Amino acid sequence: MNRTLTTLRVFNHNSTIPRIRSMATSLARHKIVVCTDLGPAAPLLTGRDDLDVISWTENRSCDRAWLLRNIVGAAGVVVCFQNAVDRELVDAAGPALRVVSTISVGHEHIDLKVMAERNIQVGYTPDILTDAVADSAVMLALMASRRAGQSYSFVQNNQWPSFYWTPFAFCGPQLSTTPFSPTRTVGFLGFGRIAHAVLKRVAAFGITHCIYTPRPGAADQSVRDVRLRDAHGLVSVAPVDLLTLARESDVLFVLAPGGATTRHIVNSEFLRQMRATSVLVNNGRGSVVDSAALARALADGWIWGAGLDVVEEEPQVGSDHPLVREPRCVVLPHIGSAASETRAEMATLTACNVLAGVMGEPLPVAIDYSTIA
Amino acid sequence: MNRTLTTLRVFNHNSTIPRIRSMATSLARHKIVVCTDLGPAAPLLTGRDDLDVISWTENRSCDRAWLLRNIVGAAGVVVCFQNAVDRELVDAAGPALRVVSTISVGHEHIDLKVMAERNIQVGYTPDILTDAVADSAVMLALMASRRAGQSYSFVQNNQWPSFYWTPFAFCGPQLSTTPFSPTRTVGFLGFGRIAHAVLKRVAAFGITHCIYTPRPGAADQSVRDVRLRDAHGLVSVAPVDLLTLARESDVLFVLAPGGATTRHIVNSEFLRQMRATSVLVNNGRGSVVDSAALARALADGWIWGAGLDVVEEEPQVGSDHPLVREPRCVVLPHIGSAASETRAEMATLTACNVLAGVMGEPLPVAIDYSTIA
Repeated sequence: MNRTLTTLRVFNHNSTIPRIRSMATSLARHKIVVCTDLGPAAPLLTGRDDLDVISWTENRSCDRAWLLRNIVGAAGVVVCFQNAVDRELVDAAGPALRVVSTISVGHEHIDLKVMAERNIQVGYTPDILTDAVADSAVMLALMASRRAGQSYSFVQNNQWPSFYWTPFAFCGPQLSTTPFSPTRTVGFLGFGRIAHAVLKRVAAFGITHCIYTPRPGAADQSVRDVRLRDAHGLVSVAPVDLLTLARESDVLFVLAPGGATTRHIVNSEFLRQMRATSVLVNNGRGSVVDSAALARALADGWIWGAGLDVVEEEPQVGSDHPLVREPRCVVLPHIGSAASETRAEMATLTACNVLAGVMGEPLPVAIDYSTIA
Repeated sequence: MNRTLTTLRVFNHNSTIPRIRSMATSLARHKIVVCTDLGPAAPLLTGRDDLDVISWTENRSCDRAWLLRNIVGAAGVVVCFQNAVDRELVDAAGPALRVVSTISVGHEHIDLKVMAERNIQVGYTPDILTDAVADSAVMLALMASRRAGQSYSFVQNNQWPSFYWTPFAFCGPQLSTTPFSPTRTVGFLGFGRIAHAVLKRVAAFGITHCIYTPRPGAADQSVRDVRLRDAHGLVSVAPVDLLTLARESDVLFVLAPGGATTRHIVNSEFLRQMRATSVLVNNGRGSVVDSAALARALADGWIWGAGLDVVEEEPQVGSDHPLVREPRCVVLPHIGSAASETRAEMATLTACNVLAGVMGEPLPVAIDYSTIA
């Protein structure tokens, strides 16, 4: 268990929250604005009479105007990726604002430079979603290779009753190894915590080789790689260059963060090097993959299929989007971490972060500005 | 590696086929009727000039009349589950018929009593599809819990651009354990080779407990269960009664064979005992699950979701079928073993079985009548 979750566990026990509660009684009544649904964790905030909690409750994304109006005098604000937290918002809040708590691992919507200037703590929810996203990545790998989107639509569209079964109908490459096809290589673009969790899962399908591209300037990881190899019974775990990653991956998992440095790493040049039987999975950031290039790669058979939880144009990904129209492309609406247990834990941590912040306590899990800038 | 695959591997090497070839030159030219597509394995038969191979090539299921006309004088016939092999067919073939080779693990379409009477060998393709079906079972478990059918349709139906994201949208139970939700029980109705392969895979998702219903009168398997438990790092592997299986499974995999003894084991009474967060996966036989009862269980929230590769009414499962209409039911058109590698291996074994049979050799993998009757 890692540090974050240990901290969260402490917060879920009775030891810490009562301490905050007792402090609160000696302080002014704090205002917290909540822009998103915290589900089962909401009562951690709304159930307290020492707080003034204002929640957005409409069944649509929180209005910017509503937020600007209500944040005046707030000590804390709970946001999700849809709510930009910038200089304008901080100015509207005024000097009472001590903490921004986002229910996300990403923080592109928060201007960290402004937060640092104003000494506003920023809480977020990393790590917790690792298992849920890893589950989703394995699901997408299976769905893309085994044509689950196509065959699901086939049944939905009333085609099963007239299906002419043949031994090779709906066939696609097998994720697991077999005695006659005894090797399989998974590649990772982005080899962090989620990638390791995916590797653990796919190893049980008989995967034999793991390759990944290290971050530029990253320290040698050969000791860790041997440990991973042995822990999962693989033949090898090895860093490779980008071209080798494209050429040798049977399944390529894109789990890299967004931003300018990773934009369109998966482009036409990369995709042309992949195998005709290979599958691309993107659970990272849409911007890493060039949508137009991927649509062409699928249409022209450079690769077998794709499973995407993120798309660079999201949410402007309509039914006429070239990737949605590709029969061997499974597009899901960014639900990689949408597992009930995980989202409840994220919501709980989000509530605990904002609570600690308004009380002037260190947050259970805060963004360290010094590592960002 | 098991016996079947070792035998098949021998067949894929050069040692055995040339021996058959040399024998064939000293024998009459054998007639083989092929009713189904053998894909990359077809040339094993059609590429030989010592055989008279007649293949059904139309893009629809093989006509019975065509088969009855062409089987006259045949020494071997290659069939799939769509082609009934009964007394009428054997009579039409005449005394030359030595072997029926089916590209399937099931043999409900073959009258084994008649085959035994006439001393006709029956080849089939068990075991090979274990890994492909296990992959598909894990995929269906993930799809059913994480609402992949619903969310895939959502994107296909142009709904992503207007999606109001909230932290609990599209959430469903998480297959993998988390530090806050640290136990998970998988149940198996039918605990044979495929179930063991599924168990190996889901163990890597952090599953902690495995329960199964033993076959009536089966020998004690506690030694095997301890071995499975330790091999996969589980807390326990244990036989239970049917009621406990229903009550305690977070994910229930139906992998039982068909027939009268297993018909509708999963009925209303069973489903009412399951948890509201549990998921049912059927990769076994459709007849084991009462479709009407399952549709009601989903509609009324007795269980969370279902992933079905088989349905009792198949292929008469149209878009108006109550299970196809249930949003949390993922129905796929019986493609559990439809992985390219596996189907190519099944086709190769099917070709090798018919070849050996017409030459009067023992089949690489034959049905042993004595264990059936």
